[in-house]
Amino acid sequence: MVLAGLDAELGWIRDVYSDLHRHPELSLQESRTSKLVEERLAAFGYSVTRIGGTGVVGVLENGRGRAVLARADTDALPVAEATGLPYASEVDGVMHACGHDMHVSALLGAAKLMAHGRNAWSGSYTVLFQPAEEVGAGSKAMVDDGLVAKVPRPDVAFAQHVMPIAAGMLATTAGPVLSAADSLRITVYGKGAHGSMPHMSVDPVVLAASIVLRLQTIVSRETKPGDFAVVTVGALNAGTTSNIIPDRARLLVNIRTYDNDVRATVLAAIERIVRGECFSAGSPREPDFEFYDQFPLTNNDPAVTDKVTAAFAAHFGSGAVVRASRQTASEDFSRIPDAFGVPYTFWLLGGVDPALYKAALAKGTVAKDIPANHSPYFAPVIDPTLSIGVQAHVVAALSYLAEGR
Amino acid sequence: MVLAGLDAELGWIRDVYSDLHRHPELSLQESRTSKLVEERLAAFGYSVTRIGGTGVVGVLENGRGRAVLARADTDALPVAEATGLPYASEVDGVMHACGHDMHVSALLGAAKLMAHGRNAWSGSYTVLFQPAEEVGAGSKAMVDDGLVAKVPRPDVAFAQHVMPIAAGMLATTAGPVLSAADSLRITVYGKGAHGSMPHMSVDPVVLAASIVLRLQTIVSRETKPGDFAVVTVGALNAGTTSNIIPDRARLLVNIRTYDNDVRATVLAAIERIVRGECFSAGSPREPDFEFYDQFPLTNNDPAVTDKVTAAFAAHFGSGAVVRASRQTASEDFSRIPDAFGVPYTFWLLGGVDPALYKAALAKGTVAKDIPANHSPYFAPVIDPTLSIGVQAHVVAALSYLAEGR
Amino acid sequence: MVLAGLDAELGWIRDVYSDLHRHPELSLQESRTSKLVEERLAAFGYSVTRIGGTGVVGVLENGRGRAVLARADTDALPVAEATGLPYASEVDGVMHACGHDMHVSALLGAAKLMAHGRNAWSGSYTVLFQPAEEVGAGSKAMVDDGLVAKVPRPDVAFAQHVMPIAAGMLATTAGPVLSAADSLRITVYGKGAHGSMPHMSVDPVVLAASIVLRLQTIVSRETKPGDFAVVTVGALNAGTTSNIIPDRARLLVNIRTYDNDVRATVLAAIERIVRGECFSAGSPREPDFEFYDQFPLTNNDPAVTDKVTAAFAAHFGSGAVVRASRQTASEDFSRIPDAFGVPYTFWLLGGVDPALYKAALAKGTVAKDIPANHSPYFAPVIDPTLSIGVQAHVVAALSYLAEGR
Amino acid sequence: MVLAGLDAELGWIRDVYSDLHRHPELSLQESRTSKLVEERLAAFGYSVTRIGGTGVVGVLENGRGRAVLARADTDALPVAEATGLPYASEVDGVMHACGHDMHVSALLGAAKLMAHGRNAWSGSYTVLFQPAEEVGAGSKAMVDDGLVAKVPRPDVAFAQHVMPIAAGMLATTAGPVLSAADSLRITVYGKGAHGSMPHMSVDPVVLAASIVLRLQTIVSRETKPGDFAVVTVGALNAGTTSNIIPDRARLLVNIRTYDNDVRATVLAAIERIVRGECFSAGSPREPDFEFYDQFPLTNNDPAVTDKVTAAFAAHFGSGAVVRASRQTASEDFSRIPDAFGVPYTFWLLGGVDPALYKAALAKGTVAKDIPANHSPYFAPVIDPTLSIGVQAHVVAALSYLAEGR
Repeated sequence: MVLAGLDAELGWIRDVYSDLHRHPELSLQESRTSKLVEERLAAFGYSVTRIGGTGVVGVLENGRGRAVLARADTDALPVAEATGLPYASEVDGVMHACGHDMHVSALLGAAKLMAHGRNAWSGSYTVLFQPAEEVGAGSKAMVDDGLVAKVPRPDVAFAQHVMPIAAGMLATTAGPVLSAADSLRITVYGKGAHGSMPHMSVDPVVLAASIVLRLQTIVSRETKPGDFAVVTVGALNAGTTSNIIPDRARLLVNIRTYDNDVRATVLAAIERIVRGECFSAGSPREPDFEFYDQFPLTNNDPAVTDKVTAAFAAHFGSGAVVRASRQTASEDFSRIPDAFGVPYTFWLLGGVDPALYKAALAKGTVAKDIPANHSPYFAPVIDPTLSIGVQAHVVAALSYLAEGR
Repeated sequence: MVLAGLDAELGWIRDVYSDLHRHPELSLQESRTSKLVEERLAAFGYSVTRIGGTGVVGVLENGRGRAVLARADTDALPVAEATGLPYASEVDGVMHACGHDMHVSALLGAAKLMAHGRNAWSGSYTVLFQPAEEVGAGSKAMVDDGLVAKVPRPDVAFAQHVMPIAAGMLATTAGPVLSAADSLRITVYGKGAHGSMPHMSVDPVVLAASIVLRLQTIVSRETKPGDFAVVTVGALNAGTTSNIIPDRARLLVNIRTYDNDVRATVLAAIERIVRGECFSAGSPREPDFEFYDQFPLTNNDPAVTDKVTAAFAAHFGSGAVVRASRQTASEDFSRIPDAFGVPYTFWLLGGVDPALYKAALAKGTVAKDIPANHSPYFAPVIDPTLSIGVQAHVVAALSYLAEGR
Repeated sequence: MVLAGLDAELGWIRDVYSDLHRHPELSLQESRTSKLVEERLAAFGYSVTRIGGTGVVGVLENGRGRAVLARADTDALPVAEATGLPYASEVDGVMHACGHDMHVSALLGAAKLMAHGRNAWSGSYTVLFQPAEEVGAGSKAMVDDGLVAKVPRPDVAFAQHVMPIAAGMLATTAGPVLSAADSLRITVYGKGAHGSMPHMSVDPVVLAASIVLRLQTIVSRETKPGDFAVVTVGALNAGTTSNIIPDRARLLVNIRTYDNDVRATVLAAIERIVRGECFSAGSPREPDFEFYDQFPLTNNDPAVTDKVTAAFAAHFGSGAVVRASRQTASEDFSRIPDAFGVPYTFWLLGGVDPALYKAALAKGTVAKDIPANHSPYFAPVIDPTLSIGVQAHVVAALSYLAEGR
Repeated sequence: MVLAGLDAELGWIRDVYSDLHRHPELSLQESRTSKLVEERLAAFGYSVTRIGGTGVVGVLENGRGRAVLARADTDALPVAEATGLPYASEVDGVMHACGHDMHVSALLGAAKLMAHGRNAWSGSYTVLFQPAEEVGAGSKAMVDDGLVAKVPRPDVAFAQHVMPIAAGMLATTAGPVLSAADSLRITVYGKGAHGSMPHMSVDPVVLAASIVLRLQTIVSRETKPGDFAVVTVGALNAGTTSNIIPDRARLLVNIRTYDNDVRATVLAAIERIVRGECFSAGSPREPDFEFYDQFPLTNNDPAVTDKVTAAFAAHFGSGAVVRASRQTASEDFSRIPDAFGVPYTFWLLGGVDPALYKAALAKGTVAKDIPANHSPYFAPVIDPTLSIGVQAHVVAALSYLAEGR
């Protein structure tokens, strides 16, 4: 009933998608996108609020019943588009290379259908357009700006992400599906000196090297075999010339975990090791630790996931719904349901031309042939991806809001 | 006899010094300085040749006898002067912070005196003004440009350097006085990957860290205890963000030695260790080794040094001549006598106000109170430094050219 | 039917158990045990063969049908028993501290019941008593001695192990249940010298230390996050006095994996790292690698496991059968079915007094309060452990041999 | 005058030497040697005292004048002699492989000559026979037993050591001639666990490996280039089997320095590094540091050395006296003059057949062809070594005691 009008709506939804794709905006600068979203939601009859700078929430109250929140992220990436698409980015060096334009368009489509089809359900439907997912800052900004007080408390929350799997497919999984991720900037201090006078120095290059080797033991010795933990020193920078011993070194560390206890253990071990190595080195100053780009664990509620998965299977056919494997990537969506203390599920939306995907799968060249998220060649097919994305949101929402009707 | 006219000359020598100090020129860009030197030498009656770009050589033939070559270096440093002197640098960010302006002025003064006093000696006197000492490139450039074929082969070569010791003092020593120095850019290769997928990478940060720790063993285990060897990793740079494993790391290494066998052993050990560590890491590509800024050992000939030291003591008084300790610094002067295959000596010229020096010595604050070479506050006193610098060159030259007269 | 006579048999089975417990025999020395087993099997009507030294196989042919092989391991450990039990070990320093006496007794009981109840099934039942499981050598010895040619090829193989879970319980799991384990003795060579003359040496202590740190990167960087891999350097020994640099170092490494590809990757990485580090060190001789105490992966066949689990649930009640978690321990059982190329399942048999277990579980002190395998206090309760162990073997065998009857 | 009777004495001196060589005694077990020395000294007219267990001191008072102390060390080594000499060791596994038997015999000879020639000098002559030099314990034992109170305070002290240089030669040097040496037993603590459960452990093997690599930086980065410092980890022992993570590791470290400030810096750095690494590892217990086998710096007084060197040159000819280079070895002699607060000199006595030495020198095979101290082939030639050793002690003593006569 609700989805009956979908075909009639797809025209403007595709236009919104192309428009957003042409005008990508970096994290925390999503002003054009926010304005577009606000105008549409208002036109659909949602009561619209700006939260957390460029965040937008629309609420549709529709009588007694449960409350559902659906979220889309809105920001683009500092990537120079290389797809050659007719609707390619018109902003130099910025691209919707992670498909958030697809998320926004699909959720707007769902919002319209839910508003139009309100006779078929009751309760409240909240659509949340979150900025700055890429830097892990947007959901926090919205929560910090009073999200919980400003919108109805949902009973359940949903989000989806377009991924390099066949378009037409949805992938769900109960439990952890995206890792927690933390970035940590560590600065350790030595004492500079001329390169020929090491005895006058405390050498931060040697100190940083020791830290890097010692950090390896967190995964190899302090983590239970088989538990998921990654400690990557993605950048180590110290000094600029050969003959000057610098006075500090900077390490950028990325930590991925799938369990909050493991995460706490890893973070504590990093700090312990860095402090111990600084002591060994005779470092003249305590190290600095600055966390940034932190993403929480995405841990799908089993009951919600089972319910939504069943609804997907009923609507799309069970062949269209697969079990998602754990992703190494991260998301900041879960901070929103966590702020309300409510369960959630996050599913994956296929975006690759099915024939292309099948051929690559047969040749074993998926990783090579299909541009993944963040690639300058990332290009989900509009059809049927957009349509499936709209339907998935509607089906998930109705599984809670149309029950018993 | 030759030195009799010194007082009358000091006026213009001081003016040249102030002028050069006001107009410092970076390595390989010493065109104004070269022009000034050429004009003066021509006026003194020297036959003048441009060699190696901004290098200038003046030759004064004066009958039968031995041949002496005296060298001054001419370049300045990328340092912003902070002395507040009336004749401070007028070039932003460039300064004669190593005293080469003193070397040029003093050698021009000696050239004039030697020309004027030619009745008192016989043979040939060659004055060589070498560019680009600071980057270890100037003496090589002159040799590569045919120096040996273009000027008379000397019997002996001299150079001096102003240092933070009391003005009025000279310091000499037989044997090694300045270290050999080599800079080495090492690039090691890994395989990049997302920070959450270390198993898809060959991590060059871990590889570089292992190299840094392993390089320590060259001095600690492979060098004879008490031998002089320094292996400094002055810079280690890999990666720019926390969540991307980069595909390479770059190390800038500085090596200082006082013995060519030790140097050869150290360089071979560095290469062996880097290759071994790349193998351990499963590096997909051989490392790159690029040497730059190389300075040869300055190894004073004992006989020449003894002769010159004795002449200094006779002229200045034995209290004014001390034994120089080994310096950790390096120079490229020795490539010039080495190109001819002739012995040389390199001495140090005091440049600090003697009262200031004495007070600092008494308080044990020489290192703290007296700005050393390369400091933005480096400021040798003009008197008596310039005069002593002129005399030292004349006395040294005459010890070979006036003998037996 | 087959199990109907169990109660009447338990007396002698308990006696066998106590007797074996009193007379433990170390790996490859299980002669008394083998003789006892041979005599009993012959008395039950099995055709008995000695294979692989102290290995014993009994075959009971019983008409057309499938073939089942059940295995028990027979050796004890070099542990001094501290249980104070009335039937404690009478052999100094040797103890059945891993419960193999329970495995032998239960399988003898099952053999008797299967022989006695042969009307209730058809096919062949082979019971295999394997020596030297503790050192990973017994199954290999039997296979090398021609096991495959000497006994009927089974359709399926079974083994069980008594563990510190509540007696009365069985734990099963499909897929990997026990890790592959490899021990590796690595000897790396340096060059000895007096401690005051490191430059005359190649220091194997520094070399070994580098290897240890580098080996950490196999798990931290080369293994997919979440995959199970352990690389433990359990022993590092080099030198005996402070002032002599030794000429070699020995590392004993233990590797645990749950996947043969991961295992191959880890072993290759160890060799690559050790060779690379020896090269870095300038080692005068190639390192030695000697594998010992190797255990294969125990990877339960899903179909077999499901069938047996269902049979257990039907017989013992579903509350008595739990899902086994992956164990860090290892076993050499799987070499036997692998030699035949047939599927198998390996299950865990509870051995702890249920009241005690429940109390410890409630207090969270299971690890502390209940002596685990290899402890000098390890003491499974005889009842109901023995009875359950007998029944489990019979139920598993009949699930294949009594089908359709 | 004093030396006039030497030839007549050489017979018994040679016999004593052969006798001592046949009957070597290990450190702190020199009872037979002490008895022999006591009897001889008493027979020569010395007043004899036992000090520090097996230490013996003989004092000869001879009127007013200065006081000289001469010391010989008496212990042998746990080395199995392989020389095949007619007077080879008769004690299995024990050998005078460091020539202390030569030191004892020569000093006994000098004692006899000084007593017999007492008309030629005045003052006091003390001969001290010190045990346990090899383990750095003997001089300390004598000082601790009240040496300073029991014998006359000398004005100067002497010792000599036979070395692999040509017999007939003496080598002297002012300033540091033998290094300070310290042995240090470090125990670091982890937490044991099964090899498959690293997360339950604190791995002391990884901890020890990190310490070894970090200790390298003391020489490479914290010691002034060209200063003498050695930090050798001669032994690293942890664990005994591959699959048990041990709970501790033991490192035996040897430290050699030539300057007390450098020594203090190195020792402090070792402790700092070990504590820092234990912190990094999360070690559950502070590390233990136990010093043993400590040898002080042997730092010859310049004035004493010059005086004795001049006396040697006058007596033996200047061609027979060379400048000793710094030795990497150590001695505990200096604790004796240091206990009195008096200056000393320690010289080297040539012990190699001069023709053999000359030939090896010409071929560049001294290190290979001539067995050095501690070798099972060490065999100084008796003549002229013994005679020169006697004369050296007498000449040195008379340079203080016969002055002005």
